Amino acid sequence: MKSQTIAGQIVQLRAVPSPDHFRTAIVPTLTVDLQGIPGDRHYGFTRKAGARERWYEAGMEMRSGRQLSIVSVEELTEIARRMELPRIDPGWIGANVVVSGIPDFTRLPWGTRLFCDDGAVLVNEGDNAPCRFAGAEIARHFPDRERLDILFPKAAMFLRGIIASVERAGAIAPGPLKVKIPEQKLWTGGTLL
Amino acid sequence: MKSQTIAGQIVQLRAVPSPDHFRTAIVPTLTVDLQGIPGDRHYGFTRKAGARERWYEAGMEMRSGRQLSIVSVEELTEIARRMELPRIDPGWIGANVVVSGIPDFTRLPWGTRLFCDDGAVLVNEGDNAPCRFAGAEIARHFPDRERLDILFPKAAMFLRGIIASVERAGAIAPGPLKVKIPEQKLWTGGTLL
Repeated sequence: MKSQTIAGQIVQLRAVPSPDHFRTAIVPTLTVDLQGIPGDRHYGFTRKAGARERWYEAGMEMRSGRQLSIVSVEELTEIARRMELPRIDPGWIGANVVVSGIPDFTRLPWGTRLFCDDGAVLVNEGDNAPCRFAGAEIARHFPDRERLDILFPKAAMFLRGIIASVERAGAIAPGPLKVKIPEQKLWTGGTLL
Repeated sequence: MKSQTIAGQIVQLRAVPSPDHFRTAIVPTLTVDLQGIPGDRHYGFTRKAGARERWYEAGMEMRSGRQLSIVSVEELTEIARRMELPRIDPGWIGANVVVSGIPDFTRLPWGTRLFCDDGAVLVNEGDNAPCRFAGAEIARHFPDRERLDILFPKAAMFLRGIIASVERAGAIAPGPLKVKIPEQKLWTGGTLL
């Protein structure tokens, strides 16, 4: 499939009140540089390997790829439906950017560029694997429900949004978003579909 | 398609004699850190935007993604065949790593990880768009042939290898290479194939 550009919307921006926080609160705009969001726990070109990188020793310094977390309104609604919850707040799972109007947002190919109208350009570094840590944050808001922390990783598979790096520094504000999807091919070890 | 791991070979390493050089010469091993190859013109987390990024102003500081250039023996042979040349030396087009045994190497999906036996782990940042600048370097070696600089970008499309970033610092030496390909899906705006 040829490269294509589609339109979406940025509906909300969020940031942590301080670097030791996981949950994010609504802010009017975000200003990012090439290391991400200044003051964020994920700020930096590099980070320490964690549970998601089982193939590395924990704590090893590695390329980041995880500067920002981006989620979609439609996918959070679908996760909530699967978990039989009234809603999932983007802040509970540490989202920085909330978008709308992009079908199968989490499935966008790695390398897809998100051009924000206010200057910043973000690069998709792959889908954000849902974890029990984020599930536990959701569970805190529904104390009468059991095992939500374990349910979340299953319900949110390929719906939990993407992680992204900043390619061009600048501002991110609510408004139009241009999504540029690179040419897509399935690699099949010699035979291209 | 599920994620899969395939085997390949690293057959040659190359580095520039000094940062102002484009052509690379054979070295026994490469030692990379998270910014790439120390002393290389592409070393760094960031770089200046160039002709490949027509959507940015030239010279703007941007996320790099272009720390190393990796090519395959089989694809260079195919480019040479299409251009009716006896051979294309990986050094002429600035390659740092030469691999073998990986079908459709340039088509490997963005995000594919290359695990070198000697410690380094590289991440595929997409196919390397062939340009006239590399074509001109090839042309220098065949002075009796005309317009090779223009022929190269056409002949080398999706055969010119990939650009990569370092995810784990370490050594790269000739020998086995493990290639971990992430789960593949074509994004079709709502309908997944």
